[in-house]
Amino acid sequence: MRIKSPYLLFLGDAADSLAAKVAQGIVDWRPENCVGQLRLPECNADCGLTELSVAQAVEAGAKTLVIGVANRGGVISEHWIAVLSEALEQGMDIAAGLHNRLSDVPELVALAKQHGRTLHDVRHPTQEFAVGNGKKRSGKRILPVGTDCSCGKMYTALALEKALREKGHKADFRATGQTGILICGEGVSVDAVVSDFISGATEYLAPAADADHWDVIEGQGSLFHPSFAGVTLGLIHGAQPDYMVLCHEPTRTAMRGVPEYALPSIADCMQATLSAARLTNAAAEFAGLSINTKALDQANAMRLLEALETEHQMPAVDPFRTGVDKLLDAMV
Amino acid sequence: MRIKSPYLLFLGDAADSLAAKVAQGIVDWRPENCVGQLRLPECNADCGLTELSVAQAVEAGAKTLVIGVANRGGVISEHWIAVLSEALEQGMDIAAGLHNRLSDVPELVALAKQHGRTLHDVRHPTQEFAVGNGKKRSGKRILPVGTDCSCGKMYTALALEKALREKGHKADFRATGQTGILICGEGVSVDAVVSDFISGATEYLAPAADADHWDVIEGQGSLFHPSFAGVTLGLIHGAQPDYMVLCHEPTRTAMRGVPEYALPSIADCMQATLSAARLTNAAAEFAGLSINTKALDQANAMRLLEALETEHQMPAVDPFRTGVDKLLDAMV
Repeated sequence: MRIKSPYLLFLGDAADSLAAKVAQGIVDWRPENCVGQLRLPECNADCGLTELSVAQAVEAGAKTLVIGVANRGGVISEHWIAVLSEALEQGMDIAAGLHNRLSDVPELVALAKQHGRTLHDVRHPTQEFAVGNGKKRSGKRILPVGTDCSCGKMYTALALEKALREKGHKADFRATGQTGILICGEGVSVDAVVSDFISGATEYLAPAADADHWDVIEGQGSLFHPSFAGVTLGLIHGAQPDYMVLCHEPTRTAMRGVPEYALPSIADCMQATLSAARLTNAAAEFAGLSINTKALDQANAMRLLEALETEHQMPAVDPFRTGVDKLLDAMV
Repeated sequence: MRIKSPYLLFLGDAADSLAAKVAQGIVDWRPENCVGQLRLPECNADCGLTELSVAQAVEAGAKTLVIGVANRGGVISEHWIAVLSEALEQGMDIAAGLHNRLSDVPELVALAKQHGRTLHDVRHPTQEFAVGNGKKRSGKRILPVGTDCSCGKMYTALALEKALREKGHKADFRATGQTGILICGEGVSVDAVVSDFISGATEYLAPAADADHWDVIEGQGSLFHPSFAGVTLGLIHGAQPDYMVLCHEPTRTAMRGVPEYALPSIADCMQATLSAARLTNAAAEFAGLSINTKALDQANAMRLLEALETEHQMPAVDPFRTGVDKLLDAMV
């Protein structure tokens, strides 16, 4: 179910700007969906939007209060309930991507029912999916994949969607995680789907489309991550990508959350991922590399991208630093 | 939670013996857990056990009525409710591996509560799992893997457990599907676990053990099945198998349920599976092949096994026809 826009972004009592990165992601990629921000007195984050009360946000047309803050543990804070209740009473829906659910807070459930409002717990899919059928679908699909978790797959996908649209192509970002869903207003948290239905949920998320339509599907995890590779493989098979983009953070020395595990080489990761992808799309190939060079200075970043282009004989970009046009040129 | 034994096997109104294959599996592998069978007048299956009423089963010591029949759609039939209710009233738990849940039938829930009985819906895990951590565990683990679904992985695992125990080894079958769970009384239906936790659930299922203990983990799906490969990969990573056995049905021409997909070659399947398994256990290797030769006559079956041994330079058995000793010799 689509989250109604525009949004009032709730930054709550965010301890720092990192704690409000969901809100910042929405501002970065869908500024047209944001009417303003609401911060509690203790808030240390600022997305630079107009400060609005709940009443002012409703007046400005806001349809949904989006919880854009994650506190320690990813739970719904006691301190937020008054504002959330007010939002429901004044006619807004609420959307959150937290570990615990809005729908597990009896007070919010009662108010939502009373006022005919919707609570969106985007981390917890409520719909039922079919088992994946593997049938070839029309339309073009792009999937960023990674050497690790949290190395720039969502950012790369959103940058590709934006660049495709700017060049006049039909393109849609397809969100597979809670932040992506809150940014674009719909999607499926594939890591929260029952495991039998990972590829089926992905087939549902990026269905058959016009031959000249591009779905840019948010990647998840890595085939080389011992905790999450099953999600990644089901996502790859369901996505049937025509093109993949290998996402990599070059200064990382161990897989995220499992320090005993070294990162795979880019070449090994590409080879394993291609083999997997070709099960459901024999024509799958890599369009290039997306390198998160945030930890490098400009000179070193550009030197690295150049070296990787030579080594792998394909475009290497940092979406933030260089844009993604080189990747598009390899695909469109 | 462990299902209390011994069991009364409920064959219901099974249309044929195939519809009662869960009951037959329990009789084949855990005959000591069965006190008898209960069949409705329309039943066309027979597991060859003593016919018992609910009262007689309780008298004989039965602790749980196990639904050993699957009707079309895998649902709980209206025609069974009277017997199931009687079982609860007379002091038995009920266990089922069906698509819909005993706990969704209000009448059964009320009776279970009233009489202090437990309803086991083994297809639907209720416990929460941690994310897989990939840490190396002590003990030995064996995992059958397949070129396809439904090609003999559970049978192979149970045969290996039996052979190991007969030779005096400490060994446990670890069930990952509903039939396996009903056979051995505990386990986790990994394909029903939320996908983020597939490998974590498998780590829980086959925990660290004595260095000379063997866990034989039931395999699921195939890395080459476009619907279910994510489950298979998470299971492989969580299992950290020391030895794998490649299971294969030699007369099948297409992957089960997806007729557009051809079976992988045994060599390709072994190579891809080994690469995947070595992420979490660098010493993983194949002990041999387990071929389901049911569709062949004895001469052709033995010729095929011999040819496969020559081709792959490792033992090839049919657990039903030849036993699994050759596989054990390659491992123990």
